[in-house]
Amino acid sequence: MIQASICTIGDEILIGQVVDTNSSHLAVALEEAGIRVTRMLSIGDDREEILNNLRNELELNDIVITTGGLGPTKDDITKDVLAELSGSFEYVENQEQLAIVEDILRGRGLDVLPINRAQALVPEKCEVIPNRKGTAPVMVFRFPEDSYNATLFALPGVPFEAVGAIPDVMEDIRAHYPLNDILHRSIMVSGIAESALSELIAPWEDALPEDMHLAYLPSPLTGIRLRLSIYSGKAEDEKARVEEQIARLKEILGDKVYSDQDDTLEATIGRMLKAAGKTVSAAESCTGGEISHLFTSVPGSSAYYLGSVTSYAVSVKEHVLGVPAETVEKYGVVSSEVAAAMAEGVRRVTGSDYAVSTTGLAGPDGDEFNPVGTVWIGVAGPRGTKTVKKIFKHDRKRNIERFAASALDFLRLTLLEDLTN
Amino acid sequence: MIQASICTIGDEILIGQVVDTNSSHLAVALEEAGIRVTRMLSIGDDREEILNNLRNELELNDIVITTGGLGPTKDDITKDVLAELSGSFEYVENQEQLAIVEDILRGRGLDVLPINRAQALVPEKCEVIPNRKGTAPVMVFRFPEDSYNATLFALPGVPFEAVGAIPDVMEDIRAHYPLNDILHRSIMVSGIAESALSELIAPWEDALPEDMHLAYLPSPLTGIRLRLSIYSGKAEDEKARVEEQIARLKEILGDKVYSDQDDTLEATIGRMLKAAGKTVSAAESCTGGEISHLFTSVPGSSAYYLGSVTSYAVSVKEHVLGVPAETVEKYGVVSSEVAAAMAEGVRRVTGSDYAVSTTGLAGPDGDEFNPVGTVWIGVAGPRGTKTVKKIFKHDRKRNIERFAASALDFLRLTLLEDLTN
Repeated sequence: MIQASICTIGDEILIGQVVDTNSSHLAVALEEAGIRVTRMLSIGDDREEILNNLRNELELNDIVITTGGLGPTKDDITKDVLAELSGSFEYVENQEQLAIVEDILRGRGLDVLPINRAQALVPEKCEVIPNRKGTAPVMVFRFPEDSYNATLFALPGVPFEAVGAIPDVMEDIRAHYPLNDILHRSIMVSGIAESALSELIAPWEDALPEDMHLAYLPSPLTGIRLRLSIYSGKAEDEKARVEEQIARLKEILGDKVYSDQDDTLEATIGRMLKAAGKTVSAAESCTGGEISHLFTSVPGSSAYYLGSVTSYAVSVKEHVLGVPAETVEKYGVVSSEVAAAMAEGVRRVTGSDYAVSTTGLAGPDGDEFNPVGTVWIGVAGPRGTKTVKKIFKHDRKRNIERFAASALDFLRLTLLEDLTN
Repeated sequence: MIQASICTIGDEILIGQVVDTNSSHLAVALEEAGIRVTRMLSIGDDREEILNNLRNELELNDIVITTGGLGPTKDDITKDVLAELSGSFEYVENQEQLAIVEDILRGRGLDVLPINRAQALVPEKCEVIPNRKGTAPVMVFRFPEDSYNATLFALPGVPFEAVGAIPDVMEDIRAHYPLNDILHRSIMVSGIAESALSELIAPWEDALPEDMHLAYLPSPLTGIRLRLSIYSGKAEDEKARVEEQIARLKEILGDKVYSDQDDTLEATIGRMLKAAGKTVSAAESCTGGEISHLFTSVPGSSAYYLGSVTSYAVSVKEHVLGVPAETVEKYGVVSSEVAAAMAEGVRRVTGSDYAVSTTGLAGPDGDEFNPVGTVWIGVAGPRGTKTVKKIFKHDRKRNIERFAASALDFLRLTLLEDLTN
């Protein structure tokens, strides 16, 4: 089995200022390709540390992937160290990356300074994968059999640039290493906790054939991805066997399965609305813009998403959304009645077919009537208005994410009922 | 300087199922105590991997902290490996931890099974720091001078248990190691690209004393954190020297410095508004809720943030915000005039003192008048309305973040002018 090591470089990680998320994205991609990650390392911006650690990782692995330390400033020394490690005596200007650098800076109305041009300089003994999302290219060092017999990929550290480079890196790995076929098949599940899901599907999971492996990949915003894999052999031949198991699993889970592929709730809802020619809007209190943010993160969402009102202050609930002052007074801000009035209000003012609303307490504190973590969700549509209450026990940030995901799931279930019946 | 290594143990990290956040919490605590973290490692649940890596880390460091692999199930083997590593031939039952285990399980209405009792068993050659948040205790192995001359702390992997154990671990370290002071001083900068910033402060940076180290820590939402550090000696004595350098730096950067501490734009704006007793609202088009999301991510933001309207559809711009149809028709949706009318509209309907707006093209496509990445930002306040145009060249997600950060910065500069003059 091909072995890989992931190495993040930067003092900011070692002092805890930044949480390394690049490694886990890389690990997912490597694992899906059937490559074993032997370890992950984080080291500082220090010449000797980088040299010693990379030498060691190159001895022990087929593939070493680094992220970070490629910025234009003085503390970023990874490129110089890689020049030394690879025995490169000169830097060469990569024309393709230079064009991208110039494009990025001119697009921002900035001059191309020498420090920017230097971003396109790479050690002579590397190949370049251009980075279209930033100024530092991906550098590929192929060490010959008589030295390390390994490949080193140096990626930028900025997370969206590092993640953006993963497909190109994986393509390069596939072109140079003999990888087994691996068959992965995912479905997306929402509206159920991991432990409850695990109990519910235990009989099915226990009866899985020995060569099939199930993984739970939970995320606060997308629910749980269930991934069924066959790691060895000619996976193509096994497709029918996997599909048979997936069909059984979907029968057990019913409408908790929201998509048959790697997907998000907001993209799923978008497809449903688009297909039906319907529109949606949102009224947010405790989620404070998160639902709107999720809707608009889908390219093309302007076809069905009209807009939202974030009514953080009660006055905005009353004056913009038309929630009656008596309703707030009688039932409290965090109530079924206010959630319903908010959804109906934003549906009216935006003229959308559907509307979803949230009112709750993300934290740090609850109020005199409700514990922290309580949310009321409303969905208004042509067939009327429904509400539901949920309670989560996380911190503020995580509660906001769970509130938003629950609201989207409640909307999805309503659309499922309305649009397919 | 005392050196430490952090080692997280668990297959789930190496396949990317879980992002390791324990290491960064530990790193913050160690760094604050003046301990240098030399590296972080993540390794799998494998006897030989754990042994080899820990032996190596114990050779190179004064302190090694592990998290994970202490659960009651078969795949958690860290405790057995630590028994081997420490030359412990027997396990002893720790009565204090056993009482906690019994307490936790009874609290959940569960019986205490042998598998649970075993959680309180520890290798004979360790000291125990009881874990009140979970069943696995913290184990402290003090290796004598003639072996590794280092201390190993084994913490549970569950994040809230690991983080909960940090104060006790730090107290133990302080009791056993002579610690130096370490001095960090950060300022937050916005409205300037990293490369331009680097050029601007190059003369200052080049003239820094040798014992001071500058780091650039950029983030799309918070701008750039500039951190000046002195790692050695009696840091308290050096404070004045660092402050002198920071004062010079602030003079060079002027109003590009938005905070004198580790901070965000939205928290800074919150403090400015709170101090002045003013309120704010937002009208978002292309940022789709991101600005509102940022405002509400600050605990206590309801004191000054009233709410927002996300007017994704033109109809919502017209009907909810009162942007005149003629303005849209004459100047186009992405225009200074529409940005101004949106800000004025949301200020009017929410009754806020200030309002900020965005209208632009986050991507993937531009329109016939503007390239993708264009945003018009508006700020309306008691002294009138201002607009500014910015162009970014990122992908959709990153453009939305940069649009939102730019809007917040434009609002901040307006507040700075209004509230301090």
